[in-house]
Amino acid sequence: MLSMTPARPAPEFKAPDFTAMLSDRARRMNASAIREILKVTQQPDIISFAGGLPAPELFPLEEVRRAADTALTRYGPAALQYSTTEGHPPLREWIGNRAGIPAANVQIVTGSQQALDLLGKILISEGDTVLVEAPTYLGALQSFQPYGPSYVQMPTDDGGIDVDALEGILRTTAAKLLYAVPNFQNPTGRTLSAERRRRLVELTAQYGVLVIEDDPYGQLRFSGEAAPSLYELGLEYAGDVNSSHIIYCSSFSKTLVPGLRDAWVQAAAPIISKLVQAKQGADLHTPTLNQMIVTELLEDVLPRQTETVRKAYGERAAVMLGHIEKQFPSGVEYTTPEGGMFLWVTLPEGIDSTRMLARALSRNVAYVPGSPFFALGGGENTLRLSYSSATPQKIEQGIAALGETIREALD
Amino acid sequence: MLSMTPARPAPEFKAPDFTAMLSDRARRMNASAIREILKVTQQPDIISFAGGLPAPELFPLEEVRRAADTALTRYGPAALQYSTTEGHPPLREWIGNRAGIPAANVQIVTGSQQALDLLGKILISEGDTVLVEAPTYLGALQSFQPYGPSYVQMPTDDGGIDVDALEGILRTTAAKLLYAVPNFQNPTGRTLSAERRRRLVELTAQYGVLVIEDDPYGQLRFSGEAAPSLYELGLEYAGDVNSSHIIYCSSFSKTLVPGLRDAWVQAAAPIISKLVQAKQGADLHTPTLNQMIVTELLEDVLPRQTETVRKAYGERAAVMLGHIEKQFPSGVEYTTPEGGMFLWVTLPEGIDSTRMLARALSRNVAYVPGSPFFALGGGENTLRLSYSSATPQKIEQGIAALGETIREALD
Repeated sequence: MLSMTPARPAPEFKAPDFTAMLSDRARRMNASAIREILKVTQQPDIISFAGGLPAPELFPLEEVRRAADTALTRYGPAALQYSTTEGHPPLREWIGNRAGIPAANVQIVTGSQQALDLLGKILISEGDTVLVEAPTYLGALQSFQPYGPSYVQMPTDDGGIDVDALEGILRTTAAKLLYAVPNFQNPTGRTLSAERRRRLVELTAQYGVLVIEDDPYGQLRFSGEAAPSLYELGLEYAGDVNSSHIIYCSSFSKTLVPGLRDAWVQAAAPIISKLVQAKQGADLHTPTLNQMIVTELLEDVLPRQTETVRKAYGERAAVMLGHIEKQFPSGVEYTTPEGGMFLWVTLPEGIDSTRMLARALSRNVAYVPGSPFFALGGGENTLRLSYSSATPQKIEQGIAALGETIREALD
Repeated sequence: MLSMTPARPAPEFKAPDFTAMLSDRARRMNASAIREILKVTQQPDIISFAGGLPAPELFPLEEVRRAADTALTRYGPAALQYSTTEGHPPLREWIGNRAGIPAANVQIVTGSQQALDLLGKILISEGDTVLVEAPTYLGALQSFQPYGPSYVQMPTDDGGIDVDALEGILRTTAAKLLYAVPNFQNPTGRTLSAERRRRLVELTAQYGVLVIEDDPYGQLRFSGEAAPSLYELGLEYAGDVNSSHIIYCSSFSKTLVPGLRDAWVQAAAPIISKLVQAKQGADLHTPTLNQMIVTELLEDVLPRQTETVRKAYGERAAVMLGHIEKQFPSGVEYTTPEGGMFLWVTLPEGIDSTRMLARALSRNVAYVPGSPFFALGGGENTLRLSYSSATPQKIEQGIAALGETIREALD
């Protein structure tokens, strides 16, 4: 049969017009602005504060190696077989126990990026109003965007979301969903204050708005005092795990390692059961072995590793803040994060951080301009710096170079 | 701050009406009919021909263990770090070489279920006409369904899709997309004949219809002669990898192991570049370590393992077909697969395989009723049997029990 005449183009053959054949949804997607910048900054001479990468030199490589070995021995072929969409039962159990909720309210996902995609998929109809921080996590905008949300920006300050402004928005806008990163936000490094959290939970409950609390960094607090999560407050408020309007997402990417892609969602049963259906269609289940590896690491390695990362990032943040104080000209403002991986710089009005980037790169230092983090634009004079994966010496050099760049731009 | 007053419900607190808050998209999703059946069939006494699970006793467990170890040594922390959305370069390179196309035309995905989801996402606008085989792979319907396709069923026979009927459909329907499993189809085990492949490629090109060729089983041929893939014919037809209208999906799930979730898409550059954007929002990237493990196994283990699986499934299929011939009453028709994991049984008209399932279970044998595999209904008298993961002895027992069940239903 292989010797049959090959298919051959009809004389009128034309390549398909692929662009014309894309879905409406696909037209809403864009190449990530950050991704393009990151490509430039991967050149070896560049000191990059641009990426949001956890420090690889801290990864528990040998522990992961042993955990893989142990999981393959403990579970045998089941470690490599298809598994349930909901996730590896002992992992769900552990997460549920820590949160004080049943395992049935926990869904394992392939990185918390998948949580955002699936939640967008099951909750956002075209035109639904979604409230996001200004600025917000760019990856959430990328996940939600194909589903056609209409964004409303919530103003923020050093205490996180301005809840008075939020009340005004809720009064005048029929919002369905609010997305927030309350701890050490990406991109600003800011934390929502405890009093504001309570108010946000109450207001959104009263106005019938679901909340996605995205908390990849919560365990990485290196100063100040922890506030309860929106999820905890939501449970108190509703009195029942299956009535709470708060949907909580977190991940092992920042506390253990990102490359295994293990994360989870905690939510009321009706949300979880729809998530299961969505995940079945999206990737059937999160890789089996990866969930078992993480499960092996929960008791000993995770707490120790979290402590190691927290301490290292605290030191790096302090080094960066120290040099910023010495090197940046007056008129430049910046946040002082109490955890996480990022801080946020606001340049004097009139300096465009996107245009300034070329000059920074010529001095071998990179950052991410702030503007892409605003759903509706703005923040042209802002930028994000990551301190998680640079050595103190590189931080010193890089911040000096960035200080010079800013001074030059001010001239 | 933790001592603040807890959030407390307003007197008028009501749990959110979660169902009312779901997206239009979520309303189109359903719990998988198969999934519910599989739960029942997991009881230990049941001989199950229902699942579509690869045989776990054949998994190359020790080889995967060594490959994980080697990958962690070779790449160090990079094996556990975030990685590129497109996929691990050596893996894309290998796939591209085998297909005779540039690595740039290969996108790695988290199981081929993700390929179907992302392709549905970027190609199907609400109401777009999608042509599917009758019956078709249920998982594809689950992936596409949230995006709101309008299905048209293509009639099939023992040679696969009836291409004369397809021409009629193309002439009268403005279809955008055709989805097919040309090799050892799930659920029927049928293979599209070589001449029909050529005609399908030409017809869809002429009518401007994109084709998703889903080929998880192609390497598992145990009898007969291989036909060229639609993708190969599409390349010949278009003369250029970036002009072909065929999008090819395949996976390491059936040839190596499913639990690592490593699969891929081959397509024209405009499709790949939109897939990259979609995947970024969906899960950032397929787990790094998993891609490296598979890459370690490509040269030696993959060919050997494929041969092992092919041989075993060929033997199991032969045993099942032999017992069917002896045990099933006349008037029952069944397919004779040349590869893959499934065969398809058509009972005499009037027997409803869904209703018959309870009787089969009471005889400790399980199958999947055929009806859910039809996008628009039908096939009430059909059922799918999987021979991949049962021993010859269990196959003998199970087929005898199923034969009795059918005879009882005929009375």
